Amino acid sequence: MDVEIDEDRLRSRFEAYSAIGGTDAGGLHRPALGDADRTARDRFVADLEALGVETWVDELGNVFGRRPGTEPELPPVLVGSHLDSQPNGGRYDGQLGVLAALETLETFERDGLETRRPVEVVNWTNEEGARFDLACTGSGTFAGVHSTDEALGRADRDGTTIGEALERIGYDGDVPCEPRDLHAYLELHIEQGPRLETAGASVGIVSGVVGMAWLEGTIAGEADHAGTTPMYARRDALATATAALEAIRSIPSRLSSETVITTGRLTVEPGSINVIPSGVDLTFDVRSADDDAVETAIRRIESELRTAAEREGTSVEVETRFEKPATAFSAEVRTALAAAAEDLDVPAETLVSGAGHDAMYVNEIAPAGMVFVPSVDGVSHTEAEFTDWADVVAGTNVLATATSRLAAE
Amino acid sequence: MDVEIDEDRLRSRFEAYSAIGGTDAGGLHRPALGDADRTARDRFVADLEALGVETWVDELGNVFGRRPGTEPELPPVLVGSHLDSQPNGGRYDGQLGVLAALETLETFERDGLETRRPVEVVNWTNEEGARFDLACTGSGTFAGVHSTDEALGRADRDGTTIGEALERIGYDGDVPCEPRDLHAYLELHIEQGPRLETAGASVGIVSGVVGMAWLEGTIAGEADHAGTTPMYARRDALATATAALEAIRSIPSRLSSETVITTGRLTVEPGSINVIPSGVDLTFDVRSADDDAVETAIRRIESELRTAAEREGTSVEVETRFEKPATAFSAEVRTALAAAAEDLDVPAETLVSGAGHDAMYVNEIAPAGMVFVPSVDGVSHTEAEFTDWADVVAGTNVLATATSRLAAE
Repeated sequence: MDVEIDEDRLRSRFEAYSAIGGTDAGGLHRPALGDADRTARDRFVADLEALGVETWVDELGNVFGRRPGTEPELPPVLVGSHLDSQPNGGRYDGQLGVLAALETLETFERDGLETRRPVEVVNWTNEEGARFDLACTGSGTFAGVHSTDEALGRADRDGTTIGEALERIGYDGDVPCEPRDLHAYLELHIEQGPRLETAGASVGIVSGVVGMAWLEGTIAGEADHAGTTPMYARRDALATATAALEAIRSIPSRLSSETVITTGRLTVEPGSINVIPSGVDLTFDVRSADDDAVETAIRRIESELRTAAEREGTSVEVETRFEKPATAFSAEVRTALAAAAEDLDVPAETLVSGAGHDAMYVNEIAPAGMVFVPSVDGVSHTEAEFTDWADVVAGTNVLATATSRLAAE
Repeated sequence: MDVEIDEDRLRSRFEAYSAIGGTDAGGLHRPALGDADRTARDRFVADLEALGVETWVDELGNVFGRRPGTEPELPPVLVGSHLDSQPNGGRYDGQLGVLAALETLETFERDGLETRRPVEVVNWTNEEGARFDLACTGSGTFAGVHSTDEALGRADRDGTTIGEALERIGYDGDVPCEPRDLHAYLELHIEQGPRLETAGASVGIVSGVVGMAWLEGTIAGEADHAGTTPMYARRDALATATAALEAIRSIPSRLSSETVITTGRLTVEPGSINVIPSGVDLTFDVRSADDDAVETAIRRIESELRTAAEREGTSVEVETRFEKPATAFSAEVRTALAAAAEDLDVPAETLVSGAGHDAMYVNEIAPAGMVFVPSVDGVSHTEAEFTDWADVVAGTNVLATATSRLAAE
């Protein structure tokens, strides 16, 4: 059957949640497990309890709500996303998927729609990886990819661990965070790229996710006086980074049109205007739909760093902090989403996600899939992030319809 | 006459002062106007008062002690340096010059040496410019190069002004900080470069200081998602900086063998591993004995930044925060220092300083000069900074002898 969600209810709830950690420029600053994240979680729990559904928090702080089916022992359909944001990020990334899941559950409840299987909604902990550099902490642990101990012990740059942060905000639940039987997992998310807008589509049916790796490089040089040390006598860590980054710039175009490499973080020690840098820490985010291209890019990044370090008389270490091969989503879930879009007359495009998502991890243990809504100008991870409301409604109807059908199976 | 300082007294005082803000690795972390700087100043004032000399603090926190001459109304000979340090810097830079001046005064007092002119010692505020980016704040204001209001209003990165910091540590004196008649100014300092060690000299007679400029660049790009934004669609502020810095690397060798350009500070916004950088702030320290080379280097730095920004679709602003032409020290003071070295049989070399010093500013209003002692391995601005004690003693004897002769004039 087709499901029609309540546009006004979704919209007013979206506006209310967006005020929690909202920025003056219309964005969202809601780092994982900070005060704003706690307030948003409290509101999510209150909304679930107002619906009268069973609600719980697991060891990793993932928040679940469950509406029973007519056969409550069957594996459920799970729908969700994440409430944390990038630093000074946008209002749509993650939050929209959690609220679309909540709207799906509320629509089922208000319409008295009976499903054979239970339907659960979830808010996953620390999807962004911006505060704690273990992206998709909650879903990855749920899928058994990270151990609970590893996840709880991961610290932010101030040394606070996820376990400590969960305790501080009161989301250190006691339900184990571990794999369990799911019939399907669905997630609505913004595209964060330009393709749906360019194609004139209201939704994207996501076939999979690019392979990706995160590297951390450390360059050790020697601090010295900027005025009295001749250029030839320097062992400048930043000059090493500069030479390597300029060479690394041309790696993607030698591999494929959609391979990307980004250095988003670079810090310089001691960071004084008249001292030659003794140290640089920098990161690399590498992605490609082709796993071999990711491997080749990693090897070449390491090689360029070593070449630059040798020339400058510095030393370099590179560590792969995270690596994930390309993901292919479940054919069944893709088909359910595509059929819902077709039945609802919503123009859809099939595409590969360039971004990692919680669904990528859940796909390890259950059939998972995603529906994207367009990002205006392809912009995301900034306060300017925006999605037309008509597309939000279309996407949420596709999500709710596909969920009801999968829950009827 | 020749003066012989008390080696043991100087050494034990040097050890005692070095414990104030001392680091585990044998360096010194004593940012201007912080708690360690206050403690070091308190000790300096106590040492001056124990000598029974008149002591005062001016508006900029410069601390003076004055031993009267037989003709107390004559313009004095002033001797000094600075007690602040670089972040995790060395024990010799600045501090050694203040203690050599104090030792000079104490030797005169203990020996009952009468001078015609008064002899004053001074500790200048914020020479390093590491916390407040107005290097030589105290001496520059004393020389009338900075206005008192400008200097007191200069803020550190946390927004605390020099005026507020002086008040907090109780060094907001009420004596005006302004030019007055000096017969001469002398300063002992470490070389911070390799030349004296290479030449086998115990002291350096400094003929002048290179010209220098400090620039700040700001690059504005656009934050975007590292996974979903194709390489061609990016406006990456860090990639702009990288391309410019790599081109700027070759500017010095096109100008002269001793022109140097250093980028010591570079920060990336928002600084998230999976977000394309929207902003980069970076600094340039440019020095050359040839003022024209400094001007040319500034123009080429600006040009390379603009070229890189245009190619990347970002924008750039460059501001000159500080500029100082090359300095020639007083021939009279140089001659007095060289004659003292010769009479004391101390092997000396004449050299140009690659580093700025308080003496450079005082030279604007009075005959000034400097004596350098060698830096082992040419290293400075780090915890490994070191000078052989025999050279310290030789340099301090040269300083004290030249001071006594100039004060006799």
